[in-house]
Amino acid sequence: MLFLRRCHSLTRFGPLNTQRYSTLRYQVAPAAASCAVRLRSSGSDDQRSYQHARSPGWTHGLAGLLAGTGAVLAYCLHQHKAEQIDTTKVESTEKAPLPVFSQAEVTKHRSLEDGVWVTYKDSVYDITEFVSMHPGGDKILLAAGGALEPFWALYAVHNQEHVLEILSEYKVGELSAEDQKKLQAVKSSDPYASDPERHPVLRINNLKPFNAEPPPEILSDSYITPSAFFFKRNHLPVPQVDPASYQLHVEGIPGGVLTLSLEDLKTQFPKHTVTATLQCAGNRRSEMNSVKQVKGLNWGIAAISNATWSGAKLRDVLLAAGYGPDVAQWAHHVQFEGLDKDVTGTTYGASIPLNKAVSEEGDVLLAYEMNGEELPADHGFPVRVVVPGTVGARNVKWLGRIIVSKDESSSHWQQNDYKGFSPGTDWDTVDFKSAPAIQELPVQSAVTTPADGAVIDRSAGEVTVKGYAWSGGGREVVRVDVSLDGGKTWQVAQLRANDKGQPPEPPRPPGRAWAWKLWELTAPLPPDAQELEIVCKAVDNSYNMQPDTVPPIWNLRGVLSNAWHRVKVTIKEDKEEE
Amino acid sequence: MLFLRRCHSLTRFGPLNTQRYSTLRYQVAPAAASCAVRLRSSGSDDQRSYQHARSPGWTHGLAGLLAGTGAVLAYCLHQHKAEQIDTTKVESTEKAPLPVFSQAEVTKHRSLEDGVWVTYKDSVYDITEFVSMHPGGDKILLAAGGALEPFWALYAVHNQEHVLEILSEYKVGELSAEDQKKLQAVKSSDPYASDPERHPVLRINNLKPFNAEPPPEILSDSYITPSAFFFKRNHLPVPQVDPASYQLHVEGIPGGVLTLSLEDLKTQFPKHTVTATLQCAGNRRSEMNSVKQVKGLNWGIAAISNATWSGAKLRDVLLAAGYGPDVAQWAHHVQFEGLDKDVTGTTYGASIPLNKAVSEEGDVLLAYEMNGEELPADHGFPVRVVVPGTVGARNVKWLGRIIVSKDESSSHWQQNDYKGFSPGTDWDTVDFKSAPAIQELPVQSAVTTPADGAVIDRSAGEVTVKGYAWSGGGREVVRVDVSLDGGKTWQVAQLRANDKGQPPEPPRPPGRAWAWKLWELTAPLPPDAQELEIVCKAVDNSYNMQPDTVPPIWNLRGVLSNAWHRVKVTIKEDKEEE
Repeated sequence: MLFLRRCHSLTRFGPLNTQRYSTLRYQVAPAAASCAVRLRSSGSDDQRSYQHARSPGWTHGLAGLLAGTGAVLAYCLHQHKAEQIDTTKVESTEKAPLPVFSQAEVTKHRSLEDGVWVTYKDSVYDITEFVSMHPGGDKILLAAGGALEPFWALYAVHNQEHVLEILSEYKVGELSAEDQKKLQAVKSSDPYASDPERHPVLRINNLKPFNAEPPPEILSDSYITPSAFFFKRNHLPVPQVDPASYQLHVEGIPGGVLTLSLEDLKTQFPKHTVTATLQCAGNRRSEMNSVKQVKGLNWGIAAISNATWSGAKLRDVLLAAGYGPDVAQWAHHVQFEGLDKDVTGTTYGASIPLNKAVSEEGDVLLAYEMNGEELPADHGFPVRVVVPGTVGARNVKWLGRIIVSKDESSSHWQQNDYKGFSPGTDWDTVDFKSAPAIQELPVQSAVTTPADGAVIDRSAGEVTVKGYAWSGGGREVVRVDVSLDGGKTWQVAQLRANDKGQPPEPPRPPGRAWAWKLWELTAPLPPDAQELEIVCKAVDNSYNMQPDTVPPIWNLRGVLSNAWHRVKVTIKEDKEEE
Repeated sequence: MLFLRRCHSLTRFGPLNTQRYSTLRYQVAPAAASCAVRLRSSGSDDQRSYQHARSPGWTHGLAGLLAGTGAVLAYCLHQHKAEQIDTTKVESTEKAPLPVFSQAEVTKHRSLEDGVWVTYKDSVYDITEFVSMHPGGDKILLAAGGALEPFWALYAVHNQEHVLEILSEYKVGELSAEDQKKLQAVKSSDPYASDPERHPVLRINNLKPFNAEPPPEILSDSYITPSAFFFKRNHLPVPQVDPASYQLHVEGIPGGVLTLSLEDLKTQFPKHTVTATLQCAGNRRSEMNSVKQVKGLNWGIAAISNATWSGAKLRDVLLAAGYGPDVAQWAHHVQFEGLDKDVTGTTYGASIPLNKAVSEEGDVLLAYEMNGEELPADHGFPVRVVVPGTVGARNVKWLGRIIVSKDESSSHWQQNDYKGFSPGTDWDTVDFKSAPAIQELPVQSAVTTPADGAVIDRSAGEVTVKGYAWSGGGREVVRVDVSLDGGKTWQVAQLRANDKGQPPEPPRPPGRAWAWKLWELTAPLPPDAQELEIVCKAVDNSYNMQPDTVPPIWNLRGVLSNAWHRVKVTIKEDKEEE
């Protein structure tokens, strides 16, 4: 009866009813199991990969699974198990007062061998048997020995009544009063609750953590992207940082740690300003997805933006911390740690090569201003590192620590993500050690207007095509070729390095062209064409070109998507209306 | 009669006879004229462009024209004109002693307006009327006011008897005895006569100046290319330099010129060794030629080689010459001048950006050794500048002068050559100022074996594909993908950075990977295939990729040809021979 009552209660969360359920229960169980396996086989063991695992295509299915059906399935799998449990035990635990455990005792149960215990509010649960039924896979083991609240806050799908009902079945005791008090001190609210407000024009790829891009036509309207429209790529909740107590630690250089306040950074070092374009490694991933499913957020063409950044030079700060030729003898990398943390306390991390960090020409900033104003929360307030010419992922936000090291960052994002592979490499054969971490990005361009599928009136007589072009490593874009016939013939676009009405950016020394070029071409409509396939490709000053097509550069993570960008538009013939 | 006699004499040089001639004369005259126009419209005004104008395709025709028919045509055009000349004048010049002119007088006649006079041995000629008939176009104007001998030595096609006969018709006087003596001092022998011996295995693209590449299969046999097989790309005759009196002048830095002997260079500066690949901008031009004719030597895939270079760092020499932060304020380029000269005395020249020249990480050498031995004559003896990661054309050989400057080299090769353009740009629309001089080259790779058209026995069961891969700017090649099915599926090749049996090159710091990677893939023969289309593409550590196809990167100079390299081979089925 208990069983039926609970299943009945499920009708509040989905279209299922008890009658349908009993059939569904056995049919879908393998699907849930295979889903759990899938998550495991991807090697994801951190919150971000988990988010990526819920990416387009089958993600949609999984998201649904997690939001409703998945929980239902878990509930039912759990019930199926529960039926097999000795009823004597259930009765005895219902009658006798449950034992009281200390947090220390709970913490001992962190594996399938020792049992998997968790706490929720004042109760202790032994969920060992539930682990294999968890729709989110063995991610649940991260919570072993500790409190569920912060996980559930991060993965909002758990905030449903029947999830609590499942949990109650596994209760084995009470948490000691003393430890309950301590836990109350742990913030259990939604870690994303304090995320900043965002402009509604942004196209959201993922809400928590927040990932969004502006509509493409906005991009080519301003050389400097307004901060509100700058693409957002967060890996974790936006940390709340008090600028008054903020501290930046510079470590790894013999002689000790240099700790700087925000005020120190602003007053003890010259302020430099650099205009630099940042691009996510996954920009234009959607084009790879349309070839074959990849893992990652389904970015369009606007995970790229251009801003003016001001701050201290990383070089100056490293010199102040004691960097010198002796350090250069053994150090090869500069690591960065953000103040954004996952539930295990792991911070976002990345590193860049030492020579980029210490070079006068590298222009690496510890930026505290963006577009002439205080850094917005979404872009790293109070301090982010801006590594011009380098993939967005190394431009660590909410910067907490800088570590000069002989090694690259050991973070997941440096070691097992943000790397490129051959189109023939799949998740079964990938060896992340075999590829270098992405630093400089290859030459890129895209058509921002007209939009794919747009209709042009024949009477217009001409078409204006606009877009952006950029290359990594300070390589300046020197030419953009535009084709209206799918790549058969090409015209050269006009390049622009300023906002209309503003003076152009001063020319940069070679190797220090950090900012994109906007481009534009107005061309007559070909007389006989009914459709145009507009294509663009950029050339940088090392004469690197973009590859023609997506399939040969397809890779399992969907990064480095820089084939020619293609947009189809229709020409609408004028109607004779006399 | 004179006319007939001379035409008769032509039979010695070709299949023409007087009877055929009178018909041919009017038929082919327009072709010769159009040929002259062609050469003019190309904007060629220096010896090298002239060589390039005689490149494959119609070059073959033009070469023939110049070698025989062209001279015949010129001769006949000339005769046609001669017939129209007032016979009184001819008679009077035949009888009266011709006037004596000084060189100064001759030099006044350097244009069509002032008359075009030249000297040959002891005689002065007014060739004004011949200019429009010259098969080599208005290139002939370069000789105006001076001696023909050095030009004829450079362009050996003139060494034919009937050319002298044509010339004799234009004689207007004698050169003064004093000026004849001076001219005798001018070396009139073949300027290429002292060019070094070369290995017969080289495939010659042009003999004078010497341009040749090794057979591709030799390339992938050695990580370090033996100097004899290293591709040769000379723009002018190889100069004879006496190492004992050799002087290198370093100019442009306030405080005066620094002059160094070879001994100074070897003893006053630390000796550095760098392994660096050099590649001609025109490597793989033949693939562009097969899309649409371009201007330039028809290089195959082997205008690239890898050697070990030793010498003084350019940075050290510039510092010794007084380079410092004050100079960095205004200087932007370092120019190089070779000791190789054309007939006008113009030396080969090029420049590189200052930051490349003075950077510790730039590794620019004033090399006096190649592969552990004295520089060979063809590679710049006694000193060449080696600019790792940069197009061959800037690695100036037989280095005579180094000039620190705010400007790029003004040489033809820097300003109006070695630049990339859109496939839509032709010789009518090209604006050389609109494109940057090529410095760093884009990522490149090619299949060296099997050769295109090779036959593989089915019984072999597998195929081994070998090749090279390299990228400019010190960007390391991190992966080579190989396809056996024209690019549909890809496998990852094994990379190698050493000669077999030798230890691999030590890993280079990021941005300083100057040497190529050799690669190899052994794969089973696809069971059903009768033909393989083998394709390779490389990826560098900025994840730049090669473009898929040639037409979209085609450019009128045929440079930067780095699309996927494709080789077709046939699989020969085994015969049952019981």
